[in-house]
Amino acid sequence: MQKLYEGKAKVVYLTQDPDKLILYFKDTATAFDATKKAEVQDKGVVNNTISSLLFELLNMSGIRTHFIQKLSDREMLVWKTERIDVEVVVRNIAAGSICKRLGLEEGKPIDPPLVEFFYKKDELHDPLICKDHILMLGLMKEEEVKHVKSVALKVNEILRKFFLEHRLILVDFKLEFGRKGEEIILIDEISPDTCRLWDAETKEKLDKDRFRFDLGDLMEGYKKVLERIKNE
Amino acid sequence: MQKLYEGKAKVVYLTQDPDKLILYFKDTATAFDATKKAEVQDKGVVNNTISSLLFELLNMSGIRTHFIQKLSDREMLVWKTERIDVEVVVRNIAAGSICKRLGLEEGKPIDPPLVEFFYKKDELHDPLICKDHILMLGLMKEEEVKHVKSVALKVNEILRKFFLEHRLILVDFKLEFGRKGEEIILIDEISPDTCRLWDAETKEKLDKDRFRFDLGDLMEGYKKVLERIKNE
Ligand SMILES: Nc1ncnc2c1ncn2[C@@H]1O[C@H](COP(=O)(O)OP(=O)(O)O)[C@@H](O)[C@H]1O
Ligand SMILES: Nc1ncnc2c1ncn2[C@@H]1O[C@H](COP(=O)(O)OP(=O)(O)O)[C@@H](O)[C@H]1O
Ligand SMILES: [Mg+2]
Ligand SMILES: [Mg+2]
Repeated sequence: MQKLYEGKAKVVYLTQDPDKLILYFKDTATAFDATKKAEVQDKGVVNNTISSLLFELLNMSGIRTHFIQKLSDREMLVWKTERIDVEVVVRNIAAGSICKRLGLEEGKPIDPPLVEFFYKKDELHDPLICKDHILMLGLMKEEEVKHVKSVALKVNEILRKFFLEHRLILVDFKLEFGRKGEEIILIDEISPDTCRLWDAETKEKLDKDRFRFDLGDLMEGYKKVLERIKNE
Repeated sequence: MQKLYEGKAKVVYLTQDPDKLILYFKDTATAFDATKKAEVQDKGVVNNTISSLLFELLNMSGIRTHFIQKLSDREMLVWKTERIDVEVVVRNIAAGSICKRLGLEEGKPIDPPLVEFFYKKDELHDPLICKDHILMLGLMKEEEVKHVKSVALKVNEILRKFFLEHRLILVDFKLEFGRKGEEIILIDEISPDTCRLWDAETKEKLDKDRFRFDLGDLMEGYKKVLERIKNE
């Protein structure tokens, strides 16, 4: 298979079909602009499994995503898109960068949920951008920003409800989008690498914050998430 | 006179009239979150003069501002408002923080002009915020954000034209707003401390960037601005 791109967490391969890609989930964990880095056994397997399950749920809920099918432990078949260099973050509870940035206390509910945009550019450290920056940079048109924001909020409602049914609190998450013809669809992954998930009772952190702040075994958290959403 | 507040560049005094304040313009120059600081002779006098002249122009142009009258070399009589903790920046040309933040080249025209909001909180280093952060933080209502943005763009058109008539390019500037009863009006100062101004022919910087980056005598630039807009 021809490698198209190797990122921090995944490798992207071309397929026979020019419209399709394979995402290969690696075991590499990175944080803080990849200044912190480690190999974590089985992370790729667990993230591919969780991601596939969540994309399937979203597809069934009428959200247009790149997900076609899970091919193997570490491989996902997806629609090829032209990536939009914007990370879309939805926040239900204050945690992470926004706390430092705006002086908010971790755990403070954010109601209505907040949608933030970041310019996906490693060399600029993914700076926050607003709608007018997106227009200025030519990343999306005004109508497209509105669409992406409304999809992000819909995804939030679907995932929040789903996770809560499995005793997990969806604190925040990051989405990426890409263009497939005229359409803008959800791409990349949705996993404990890209979501903050807390145990609903104990508030234990089960996501990448375990790795960022050395809060305990990373895979213990990720596997707890997987077991709950798969079996319960 | 009773001091209400002492800031980095001005002192605010109460007056006999509870609806009015006096702004006293100091000679202190600060940059980079006041990590760089100096006393610059006559800066207060020149900034009060420039600011008074520009507020007068805006008042005459139908913009609601706090300006009542210039009282002395360093003193301006203004309407007392409840300050809104948002700095509103309008950019016609890329310069300063936005270049580093988004990887833009200094001097690149920004068309249409870009309006940015920053949370005025020294301890947080004035972070960029978007409309939804303003709503979340309860700083303004949605309609108020729209109003402030449209006033900022009107001010930009008025000042841009005015400066160009005096062979000066208005690169960008920062505005502050306050509440007076039900109304939101323009407050604070408009000066080479808060505007980037370049000579239209030579592109010489005549504003606070001279101080920030040691580009030459600060007051030489400020006085050139004053002389041009006063006498030409
Ligand atoms: N369906 C898709 N079409 C095009 N690009 C995609 C798709 N899904 C994911 N990508 C991109 O593939 C890369 C996945 O690898 P990853 O390790 O996450 O990279 P990065 O380090 O850039 O975040 C990302 O750049 C992501 O935006
Ligand atoms: N009309 C007004 N009503 C209330 N506050 C004002 C008004 N005009 C200016 N201010 C505030 O007075 C202070 C002016 O002093 P300054 O040295 O600029 O302070 P800072 O260091 O906080 O920027 C600022 O906090 C500014 O927001
Ligand atoms: Mg990624
Ligand atoms: Mg000030």
